[in-house]
Amino acid sequence: MPAKTLLYDTTLRDGTQGEQVNLSAEDKLRIARKLDEFGIHYIEGGWPGSNPKDVRFFDMIKKNPLRNARFTAFGSTHRSGVHPEKDGNVQALLATGVETVTIFGKSWTLHATDILGISLDENLNIIEDTVSYLKGRGLEVIYDAEHFFDGYKQDPDYALKTARAAMEGGADMIVLCDTNGGSLPYEIEEVMEAVMPGIPLPLGIHTHNDCGLAVANSLVAVRAGARMVQGTINGYGERCGNADLTAVIGNLALKMDRESVAPEKIAQLTELSRFVSEVANVPPVNQRPFVGKSAFAHKGGVHVSAIMKQPPAYEHIEPGQVGNRRRVLVSDLSGKSNIDYKCREMDLKLGGNGYDSRKIVREIKRLEDQGYQFDAAEGSLALLIKRVTGQLKESFTLESFRVTTEKNHSGPSTSQATIKISVGDDQEITAAEGDGPVNALDNALRKALVKFYPQIEEMGLVDFKVRVIDGRDATAAKVRVQIESRDASDIWTTIGVSENVIEASWQALAESVQYRLSRGQGEKPLKTLNGPVEPEAVIQTHRKIF
Amino acid sequence: MPAKTLLYDTTLRDGTQGEQVNLSAEDKLRIARKLDEFGIHYIEGGWPGSNPKDVRFFDMIKKNPLRNARFTAFGSTHRSGVHPEKDGNVQALLATGVETVTIFGKSWTLHATDILGISLDENLNIIEDTVSYLKGRGLEVIYDAEHFFDGYKQDPDYALKTARAAMEGGADMIVLCDTNGGSLPYEIEEVMEAVMPGIPLPLGIHTHNDCGLAVANSLVAVRAGARMVQGTINGYGERCGNADLTAVIGNLALKMDRESVAPEKIAQLTELSRFVSEVANVPPVNQRPFVGKSAFAHKGGVHVSAIMKQPPAYEHIEPGQVGNRRRVLVSDLSGKSNIDYKCREMDLKLGGNGYDSRKIVREIKRLEDQGYQFDAAEGSLALLIKRVTGQLKESFTLESFRVTTEKNHSGPSTSQATIKISVGDDQEITAAEGDGPVNALDNALRKALVKFYPQIEEMGLVDFKVRVIDGRDATAAKVRVQIESRDASDIWTTIGVSENVIEASWQALAESVQYRLSRGQGEKPLKTLNGPVEPEAVIQTHRKIF
Repeated sequence: MPAKTLLYDTTLRDGTQGEQVNLSAEDKLRIARKLDEFGIHYIEGGWPGSNPKDVRFFDMIKKNPLRNARFTAFGSTHRSGVHPEKDGNVQALLATGVETVTIFGKSWTLHATDILGISLDENLNIIEDTVSYLKGRGLEVIYDAEHFFDGYKQDPDYALKTARAAMEGGADMIVLCDTNGGSLPYEIEEVMEAVMPGIPLPLGIHTHNDCGLAVANSLVAVRAGARMVQGTINGYGERCGNADLTAVIGNLALKMDRESVAPEKIAQLTELSRFVSEVANVPPVNQRPFVGKSAFAHKGGVHVSAIMKQPPAYEHIEPGQVGNRRRVLVSDLSGKSNIDYKCREMDLKLGGNGYDSRKIVREIKRLEDQGYQFDAAEGSLALLIKRVTGQLKESFTLESFRVTTEKNHSGPSTSQATIKISVGDDQEITAAEGDGPVNALDNALRKALVKFYPQIEEMGLVDFKVRVIDGRDATAAKVRVQIESRDASDIWTTIGVSENVIEASWQALAESVQYRLSRGQGEKPLKTLNGPVEPEAVIQTHRKIF
Repeated sequence: MPAKTLLYDTTLRDGTQGEQVNLSAEDKLRIARKLDEFGIHYIEGGWPGSNPKDVRFFDMIKKNPLRNARFTAFGSTHRSGVHPEKDGNVQALLATGVETVTIFGKSWTLHATDILGISLDENLNIIEDTVSYLKGRGLEVIYDAEHFFDGYKQDPDYALKTARAAMEGGADMIVLCDTNGGSLPYEIEEVMEAVMPGIPLPLGIHTHNDCGLAVANSLVAVRAGARMVQGTINGYGERCGNADLTAVIGNLALKMDRESVAPEKIAQLTELSRFVSEVANVPPVNQRPFVGKSAFAHKGGVHVSAIMKQPPAYEHIEPGQVGNRRRVLVSDLSGKSNIDYKCREMDLKLGGNGYDSRKIVREIKRLEDQGYQFDAAEGSLALLIKRVTGQLKESFTLESFRVTTEKNHSGPSTSQATIKISVGDDQEITAAEGDGPVNALDNALRKALVKFYPQIEEMGLVDFKVRVIDGRDATAAKVRVQIESRDASDIWTTIGVSENVIEASWQALAESVQYRLSRGQGEKPLKTLNGPVEPEAVIQTHRKIF
């Protein structure tokens, strides 16, 4: 079996170069701990020379060191004409107290002459001197050969000389970088094969996704002999991102039979991806290989009926291997198979020898024409199925509501709601304030309902999404609101659609409560449909924000 | 130079298997025309045997044929024991009147025996008979060998036999499919090389992205001899999607020097991607290679100062080659270079020898801490820069507003707004209705302002986005509203952040109007910062939806 592939995560530095990705020092700490526990071998904390936030984060880690991973600091070679002893960046690396540093230097003549404005020879000296200085301080030094492939394409001898300069300086590993992400897999392979004899050190690979090839390029490099892969969780990073470590890990373990993290950790890959996405506050990409919400989702009737016989018919791996799950989507394209699968999953009974399924498909089709979408709102889907099949008793009826938001000069806005509902023959009218109109409405609804249904006390809202739909016909343009709710044992999503954002929010809110109250005693919680309930630390109650 | 690579688009069929992708017959027509004009060689319309929507779409195309592309219908081999003459699916293909059909059949023993439940020999006969029947009706027949790579890995002889059965039936081309998306680039290459001698016909490749390798696998296949690539625009498709044709086209043209579409069309790649994303109503992926909004976006100060000297320093191609553009992002990580670049782009003057830039960076940092994000809100950024540098005269001041939304029983909700503003020494109070609270507020604001600023009549809102931010600390959770606005010559985005969605919307709305009114006579429109103003047909006014 080939040697273990080392994983080097740079989510905390290169990842934060991505548009939308901003991490506080506290965010970085949470991600670093998660990566450490998952078994990533090297975790790069940041560039202490470049900003005070990273300095603070390095201090936090110094006080609470990681358990397993090597924690590394990133920096550049020393400045021209400045001895490493006097170079602020280099000294900032030492000040972090880490045992491993990663130094990047220039492999491409263009960068030496036109960007740094130094001679090619001086660039070689700077690389060797920086590495050798840090080695002299007892550190492990990883040398990132920036733009190695672009440099090699233009001047192979010079690119090789830069890597050899790092080697002469005593580098422990040389990482070949496709910094601009412009190389193709067979180019990576050819260059790796050409340079390996000249650099008798362990090599690493660092790729970017500008051609959509970062994962392929990393795998090809491993096959050609690279011992380390640098990348980021979820492929965050500048421009089109870095190599997505989740896909790299999935492929290494399940397709190439190479060990990287411990085999038992592979089943936590999906959770790792979602955790980082939550902390970074970047919406998860559903189509993401291995770990995305749609990665094992089936919509077409033909595929659904096939996987009901044999899952490998349309699944390249068993979803549980990476901690993900199979999902059957219900849409206007679905057939009876999809509805049957869903009802079995939800423990709902269908009668009428296919008659119920057809009625349900018809109702879904009608509502999807109006902008509803049930594949992501399984709470509302469960209510729809129960309604169509006469299995739902509505828990309350709305008589009326009024929501008001006011603002004076530059003071903050205030919101109030009045609501009147009936429960059986009883009516209840009440009012409440809130941080926003939907929060006020939510507060008023709970206040009105709690004396009838005390169990709603333990229910909370988790997330609130608003989307403008159908931009083509201005008169028909609508908003779709999705609300995710939870209680101690379940998590569910409901939906509302209207031209009015308050009306759409109301629908989703009312459905959310109806779903909770309609859930039978022994009924299977929906959370099994939405994946595991995520750790408390990640999903927080967003009730206040409405 | 190698022969031209044929492009086969299946966005309209395989693409719609993707979660979130639903296309009406009218949507399909708009996309088909766009693909035709762009120069895609084969455009697959759908599966006329599977649903009535596709039948209607084929009728629409029959009445208004495409100009350049071959329009194709997709279907399966005939059912076991049913002569093609009597097979509904096969006959539906003929009924469309197209000249090219694509038939998929089973290459993998598992699918023949366990899914179709037929013998391996019968499967071969069914493939040959279906192809031969359709050839006998004078059609061009493309044979999609479903699961070819999985089938080959399990039973190479049998997989090859199925392809040869299609060849014996007279197929014009055999497309090898990695249906489950589970193959690696070197496996694709090895299988292609092994089977090409046995199938003396033009071969095609059809890949899925379950391992994050669909583009790499397509390119590797082309290099190994495939003449056709099947894929979808933006990689839409079931599970993790199909091969993204935008990346395939970009790589073929700019990296592999292979002709596919006419070279002059490559500069329309970004527009094509965004058009399809708009019509499909799926938010564009910013990180998408070549065509994404972030594909040439630079955030780190070091990179920005380097590309100001030499763009190739951190760009693998010139963005204009694919109709995309360079963007410099401004965030709390930015340095002076980013601000200087932005101001030059916007024609704003900075003074104070770096003093202004530092003040601006400080203000951005302060607001980003509160949840604002300026990299996607360049209208608000321009206002911020003008405010900080004393170049902005506020056009109006809010005195107060009140917005009310009411609902009775199950009737629709109604919204009303009252607003009081001052312009200089004048005050104006007025009220308006709207389809929702923000629309009512927008209507009232315009009504109050129009007598002072008649030019706001020509301004419209294009898009409205709401995002819940900072879920970690429930008390600090907020909503961020982004509003995109336009007039005849410009398009700009503004932002608001608050715990109250109405307050956040108000901020973004007020900023949007302030931006329009503050734009100087000769000032460069911001649209150059947001890419070309998209065709009228695509971006519509969403004013009504608020």
